[in-house]
Amino acid sequence: MNTTLNNPVKNELLSAAELLDHWQGHRKLTRRVILAFPEKELFEFSIGGMRPFFELVMEMATLAGPGVKGVATGEWPHVDHTGGSKRPATKEEVLDFWDEVTEEINTYWPAIEPVRFQKVEKAFGFYEGTNISTIQYLIDNEIHHRGQGYVYLRALGIEPPAFWER
Amino acid sequence: MNTTLNNPVKNELLSAAELLDHWQGHRKLTRRVILAFPEKELFEFSIGGMRPFFELVMEMATLAGPGVKGVATGEWPHVDHTGGSKRPATKEEVLDFWDEVTEEINTYWPAIEPVRFQKVEKAFGFYEGTNISTIQYLIDNEIHHRGQGYVYLRALGIEPPAFWER
Repeated sequence: MNTTLNNPVKNELLSAAELLDHWQGHRKLTRRVILAFPEKELFEFSIGGMRPFFELVMEMATLAGPGVKGVATGEWPHVDHTGGSKRPATKEEVLDFWDEVTEEINTYWPAIEPVRFQKVEKAFGFYEGTNISTIQYLIDNEIHHRGQGYVYLRALGIEPPAFWER
Repeated sequence: MNTTLNNPVKNELLSAAELLDHWQGHRKLTRRVILAFPEKELFEFSIGGMRPFFELVMEMATLAGPGVKGVATGEWPHVDHTGGSKRPATKEEVLDFWDEVTEEINTYWPAIEPVRFQKVEKAFGFYEGTNISTIQYLIDNEIHHRGQGYVYLRALGIEPPAFWER
C-alpha cells in the first residue's frame, strides 16, 4: 500500500507554491516601501554611510530573478547589481524593474523540480549551500534591507506601510 | 509497496529540524547584534521616533517562546512584551533573557507534531493563520527589526556583524 497516495494529510512543512506566495507577499510589501519614498530620497537618502534604499532594492531585485532561474536550471551566471543596461534612473523605472522580476520569478518557479531544492550548488557561482537555503537567503536578505528602508522612511518623517500587510 | 519508506529521496522543501536550525542561526546573529550595542544605546538610542533596539528585542523574544509553545500545544496565552517580572534592566540581563528563550524554543520545538504546522489557529489569541505561517512571521519579524538595529549601529558609527554569518 502506498501511504503517500492514499493519505490526504499533507505533512510537508510548506509546499513550494506556498513558499512562492510567501515571498511574493513580501515582494508586494517591498514594492509599497519603494512607493513610499520621495523620488530624490529613494536615490540619495542614507544613514550612517549606508547605501540609499535604491541600491538595497537593486541588490534584492538583481539576485531574485537569476536566483530562481539558477535553482530551476542549475545555471548560475554572474550577477550585476547595477542592473547594467536596464539600470533604473527614476522611481517609475525602479517599480517597472521590480515588476519584471516579479514576472521572472513567477515564470521560473513552477519549472523547479522538487528534488532541486535540497541539491547543494554554488549559488551565483560563489555561495555553496542547498538551493532551498539560497531561496531562504534571498527572502531573508530582502526583509533585512527592507527593514532598513523603514528606518530611512521614519527618519524622513514618513509612515511606512504596515509590516504584516502583504 | 510503500514508496515513502523505500525511497531515500527527501522531497520535502524543508524539514522541521532544518527550519529550527535556520531560525536559531538567525537568533545567534541577533544575539551578536545585541552584543554590538553599547549598554546605554541599547536601551535609549532611536531614530525617527522608533523604539530603541531593546524594545524591538523584547518584542521578538516575548513572541518566540510562547509562539513555539503555542504551536506545540495549541494553547495561546496572552503575551506581555515588557517581559513582566523578568524584564531585563541591563544588557547582560537582555542576553540572559535571550538565552532562556533559546532553550525554550529548543525544548518545545521537537514536541510539535508535524500535522500541527498546517493547522489554522488564532496565534496569541488574535492572528488567524496556519501555525507554519505564524512561525514564519516570528522569524521574518525578527529579521525585519534586527535590520533596523543595523541602521542604529551604523548611525552610532559601529560596524554590525555580517548578515550572512549565523
